Amino acid sequence: MAGPTYQALPGFRDFIPRECAIRNYLFDTWRSVARRCGYVEYESPVLEDTALYLKKSGGELSAQLFRFEDQGGRDVTLRPEVTASLARLVAEHQRHFPKPLKWFEIGQCFRYEKPQKGRGREFHQFNVDIIGEGGPNADAELISLAIESMLAFGFVAGDFVVRVSDRQAWIDFAKKYGVGEESVPEFLNIVDKVEREKPEELDKKLAAFGLTAELVKGFIADPANASEAYEAILENLTARGLGDFVELDLSIVRGLAYYTGVVFEVFDSKKSMRAVAGGGRYDTLVATISDGSVDLPATGFAMGDYVIRNLIEETTHANMQMEAWLQRNAANCEIYLVVADEEKRPEALKLLTDLRRAGICADLPINSMKVGKQFQMAGKVGARFALVVGGEYPELKLKVLSSRSEESGQVDNAVEWLTARLQEPDGPLLA
Amino acid sequence: MAGPTYQALPGFRDFIPRECAIRNYLFDTWRSVARRCGYVEYESPVLEDTALYLKKSGGELSAQLFRFEDQGGRDVTLRPEVTASLARLVAEHQRHFPKPLKWFEIGQCFRYEKPQKGRGREFHQFNVDIIGEGGPNADAELISLAIESMLAFGFVAGDFVVRVSDRQAWIDFAKKYGVGEESVPEFLNIVDKVEREKPEELDKKLAAFGLTAELVKGFIADPANASEAYEAILENLTARGLGDFVELDLSIVRGLAYYTGVVFEVFDSKKSMRAVAGGGRYDTLVATISDGSVDLPATGFAMGDYVIRNLIEETTHANMQMEAWLQRNAANCEIYLVVADEEKRPEALKLLTDLRRAGICADLPINSMKVGKQFQMAGKVGARFALVVGGEYPELKLKVLSSRSEESGQVDNAVEWLTARLQEPDGPLLA
Repeated sequence: MAGPTYQALPGFRDFIPRECAIRNYLFDTWRSVARRCGYVEYESPVLEDTALYLKKSGGELSAQLFRFEDQGGRDVTLRPEVTASLARLVAEHQRHFPKPLKWFEIGQCFRYEKPQKGRGREFHQFNVDIIGEGGPNADAELISLAIESMLAFGFVAGDFVVRVSDRQAWIDFAKKYGVGEESVPEFLNIVDKVEREKPEELDKKLAAFGLTAELVKGFIADPANASEAYEAILENLTARGLGDFVELDLSIVRGLAYYTGVVFEVFDSKKSMRAVAGGGRYDTLVATISDGSVDLPATGFAMGDYVIRNLIEETTHANMQMEAWLQRNAANCEIYLVVADEEKRPEALKLLTDLRRAGICADLPINSMKVGKQFQMAGKVGARFALVVGGEYPELKLKVLSSRSEESGQVDNAVEWLTARLQEPDGPLLA
Repeated sequence: MAGPTYQALPGFRDFIPRECAIRNYLFDTWRSVARRCGYVEYESPVLEDTALYLKKSGGELSAQLFRFEDQGGRDVTLRPEVTASLARLVAEHQRHFPKPLKWFEIGQCFRYEKPQKGRGREFHQFNVDIIGEGGPNADAELISLAIESMLAFGFVAGDFVVRVSDRQAWIDFAKKYGVGEESVPEFLNIVDKVEREKPEELDKKLAAFGLTAELVKGFIADPANASEAYEAILENLTARGLGDFVELDLSIVRGLAYYTGVVFEVFDSKKSMRAVAGGGRYDTLVATISDGSVDLPATGFAMGDYVIRNLIEETTHANMQMEAWLQRNAANCEIYLVVADEEKRPEALKLLTDLRRAGICADLPINSMKVGKQFQMAGKVGARFALVVGGEYPELKLKVLSSRSEESGQVDNAVEWLTARLQEPDGPLLA
């Protein structure tokens, strides 16, 4: 017998139920933590005019785009990220909203990369931005959400750290050591790779600017080089009780050209020092995208679904929290109706409808099935209870599947009885 | 001053916060009604191998595809619908799940059509399927969810009707009147348009099969032509208390070639008789997609976000329910902290963190702001309460924004106090 003919495209995921439930756990957690921190949700289109990304990047397009011509001859691209779209939306709609905008989006992005562990050609991203408020207090407000997100997933102190830097410190450095303004982007690219570059390569590149590796590394190592913004952010986060999650790391400059000031990354501090999230201040992007018609300072970060999921699964306490959520939210139903007497199917269907209407997740075998097999099905679909509709009707038997104990009730008040019962533990209640 | 330079592509929507909240209302309602009826969520990829859609449609591709060649030279297509992907997923993964599969997906689909009111080039679709169970009880279980979805949106009897038909009745008709088996799809296409076609055109087309419009319309009009499956579905739904929502309508055959039996559409019965949802049985698709390696009967329906949203907004009681949901779920925050004394910002930040950590949606002005302006902001961001942190600290004043009344409490038990307070009505409590 031949296997299935078709498969998902390389780097694209099939979210079969458990995978989809894990995705929903990430989305629910992101959404609830952002909501309680005062952010509202938006979503930009999955497909955009390629010119938008060209504008954002200053003319250089990534080689990793899903880019094509649509039937109307438009040059279009599946979004590789959402910040360009956000800047477009903000430029168009900002006048209808009080400032600052605190907006978040949970959306899928697409990049044509080599698929590997921890990276696909599609991924989901949690994007959070504060627009219309400059200054370190806005950065601190944003960073506090990055930290709260990690705590919401069950991570604790010691699991992760937020490394904060400031491009301004490097811009000042460049000025002091005579690096021309036009060369600053190239210089920042060297700083970005200072820990990974081969020593002789690094020396060569820095020599071109009249600098040495010793000088640059010395600058990174000296806490006195923290910017004023960094000190203000630390003070703000310390007042919130979050100071211990933050440290200065001037080696972080973030690759993208559009960042203008404070930048930060959330790192897994236990294992491979992977970046779980990253972001920073981009005060000129809205003006760039809108050709200067709207000028608003902005700061934002993004967290992808691949790394956070792997980190959760590798971290016992975070994983236990996720598994508990999955157990509550990924089963087919809570109560499985066992139709012990097929004559009573109409009554079972009515009861099923009443339970569902009351918000209880309930199901029953669609066609006639042996009673033993129905109990097996109840287990297979993850139900907590089997509710037997049979010869004793209107009396109903409720079997607790974990303990095999039995209780009974009447169909007339089944909704009230079972609604209350579902709030209680599964096993026989203690006296 | 020039306006914003870029806009969304034609037919693509910017989900700015209110639009996104409405989208979330639809998604939440769909998700919760499907969950309580025993369905689990999955999601198929947004991008698929074009060959998958070619296979599903038997070689004829829609002209409305977003189809292109990816960087690896693959012929790929943004999904125009999800059933082809579902069949692929089921063929690959079904052996790990008890049958029937009751699966749903909420996902975005893409079709290159002329954008107009009620139709874009992207739309969200709620897709629900029961796979691995043939027979009318499975169709009834599926149709009951279509009805429960409408009820969950606040629609009531008289707002909508489910029109059920059965292709089998037409296949029997074709056989009886000598229409060859190979001509049945063409014949069904004529039936599909019987109400809309010009009389002389209809006569001409039917004459080619030796049939008349009178004969076909007479068949549609006679309730005695209901199939056995229809009668069984009606009986099943009647037992659930849902019989009144269903009627026989043999003029419905559904355009797509892959339907094999019972088909149905949910209609707006008040206004324009728009179809809100539609679906039916497709017992051969999984075998087709898997080249016969997996053979499972299936039935499913889809509901799009455009029509249901318009219908909600046009229907007073459904719209009131949505607006109430939006009021609870679309505000920036519930409690806005007013920092009446800037010296107390650190204390306000600590309190803010505690409230958020307890699940309360709370916010504060990011930078120093006049007290009067802070109260205005509290209103603008949709807060119910303003919580004043000022000279009286650790005493806190709580202003109810709707009634302008004031209460007070202590910072030490602020979380308990405000958690309880948020459960109560806004206004001054009655004695």
